[in-house]
Amino acid sequence: MPCLKEQVLDLLKKGYPEFVSGEVICRALGVSRTAVWKHIQALRSAGYDIEAVPHAGYRLISVPDRLYPGEITRGLNTSFIGQQVYYYDRLESTNRTARELAGRGVAGGSLVVAEEQAGGRGRMGRSWFSPYGCGLWFSVILYPEVNPLHAPPLTMLAAVAAARALRRTAGVKAGIKWPNDLLVNDKKICGILTELSAEMERVNYLIMGMGLNVNIAAHQFPPEIRETATSVLRETGRRSSRVALLQDLLAELEYWYLRWQREGFAPVLDCWKELSVTLGRPVRVFTMKESWEGWAEDVDTDGSLLLRLPGGEYKKVVSGEVSLRPG
Amino acid sequence: MPCLKEQVLDLLKKGYPEFVSGEVICRALGVSRTAVWKHIQALRSAGYDIEAVPHAGYRLISVPDRLYPGEITRGLNTSFIGQQVYYYDRLESTNRTARELAGRGVAGGSLVVAEEQAGGRGRMGRSWFSPYGCGLWFSVILYPEVNPLHAPPLTMLAAVAAARALRRTAGVKAGIKWPNDLLVNDKKICGILTELSAEMERVNYLIMGMGLNVNIAAHQFPPEIRETATSVLRETGRRSSRVALLQDLLAELEYWYLRWQREGFAPVLDCWKELSVTLGRPVRVFTMKESWEGWAEDVDTDGSLLLRLPGGEYKKVVSGEVSLRPG
Repeated sequence: MPCLKEQVLDLLKKGYPEFVSGEVICRALGVSRTAVWKHIQALRSAGYDIEAVPHAGYRLISVPDRLYPGEITRGLNTSFIGQQVYYYDRLESTNRTARELAGRGVAGGSLVVAEEQAGGRGRMGRSWFSPYGCGLWFSVILYPEVNPLHAPPLTMLAAVAAARALRRTAGVKAGIKWPNDLLVNDKKICGILTELSAEMERVNYLIMGMGLNVNIAAHQFPPEIRETATSVLRETGRRSSRVALLQDLLAELEYWYLRWQREGFAPVLDCWKELSVTLGRPVRVFTMKESWEGWAEDVDTDGSLLLRLPGGEYKKVVSGEVSLRPG
Repeated sequence: MPCLKEQVLDLLKKGYPEFVSGEVICRALGVSRTAVWKHIQALRSAGYDIEAVPHAGYRLISVPDRLYPGEITRGLNTSFIGQQVYYYDRLESTNRTARELAGRGVAGGSLVVAEEQAGGRGRMGRSWFSPYGCGLWFSVILYPEVNPLHAPPLTMLAAVAAARALRRTAGVKAGIKWPNDLLVNDKKICGILTELSAEMERVNYLIMGMGLNVNIAAHQFPPEIRETATSVLRETGRRSSRVALLQDLLAELEYWYLRWQREGFAPVLDCWKELSVTLGRPVRVFTMKESWEGWAEDVDTDGSLLLRLPGGEYKKVVSGEVSLRPG
């Protein structure tokens, strides 16, 4: 049951773009005129632009560009992913807070989202630029009943969901670089950091963390990543609704997660291959200790990259960093 | 640098079984007679029996049966495992506290030990009976630089270390049931619960939790496990020093851990096979979903159990619970 403030907002949204009279709101919610006024003021403080005209009532003018729980869950087409939202203005990192929440056993599918991350992290301990209000910095908490050995493909599932949402809702042709970076025109637009807590035989919880650059202008990027990173704004020339993109992404995530539970990894992998920008290209792969040049031939059933080396042998790469070479 | 109380204890231990004069202690530590007396009183409160005789000085009579950090580290033959001890009288579970400490980044090899666990846990969410002062309930925090896919054998390494320490120091012929239960005469004497926190490509931290039944008398076991569990006391008929057993076990653990880092899993696996009570026996294996009867033929290079089914085919079991059948 949403709080009264959310219910007032709902009525204004339903009435949009018309006025909704104070009396209608009072009757619908069973509260006094003073209470309604108090909630209108609270909504205004939260950034909602609401016109108040005597004898006409209240009218919603605009919604703030914020990832408020009510904005995310209203119209969210999922059964569990994103239905519980932990919203923060600023966090060290959403993965970190998600780990704490998962340790306390919050609901599966819970979403942790922040307008800004002070210490956003990417794979291999790298930092992730997460400025205020311009991106989707979030983590989803899952409790898959799976042996931890079979968890790695879930990070590729997350990449599939993000790429499809980016294509459909944001209109950018995102492709996946093995295993889970999202690129547009060879520039990174989205990074995924999946973390898990597990016993040897079962996963306690799994955190899918994503950083998706939405409304970051070119000049906002720090110089050192300006040439290698991009955003929806940069690619399309216009600002996008972060809420709409997040809702689509969460719905995609749930769709593929449920499908993976029913049918296993094969359908995910097929879709991953279609969205891949790695396969069929000459690449260099770096692991913690070594690096190889070769041809990214295929992806194995467990998600490993099959690299064809210059001598013709195949190298199965379980983890590492790929750089695409000019073909 | 140990605290003054520990240094006073050290001098008494060095002097044992003779008296050590108050003046010698004062001079050695550069403190007053009053300070020495204060530390003697603190040691007595901690359970150390110390005789004080005018003009003769102090004499250590007995050491309490406690897993005090100073007792564990004094004479501990390791370079990092167990050198930092987090000691508690009572914990919910040592693994749980170890996870919190690891999240804060305490030193690798740190030991978390408790006299009693209120909610000791074994594999698959089962409880582990952990009464006060009668066992070794502890966890070791490690930060192996390894892909999480390659972490599972570490739980078998822990079993090897525990079995060898039990044989040498406690004099009980412990054997390993796949993957990591320790049995004596088909009764469980030690359980191991390894947990990890990881990104898809690297381990953040790994917790090796162990519960080892030392001085638990037969009648102390709850009826439901009295027939299936045992202890060093039950097998040998005498109480053993928990400190000595723990020290040997930590030294074994470090030896095999360093060897695994240098040489990989093969030497660990060879030793595991020698100590196995599973291989070459008819078994039933239960996984979360299925169960099979067959012959425990061998263990694969990744630690999986190779089960020969009645029809002659082989089944590779990554995780599960084995029950030994009469041969």
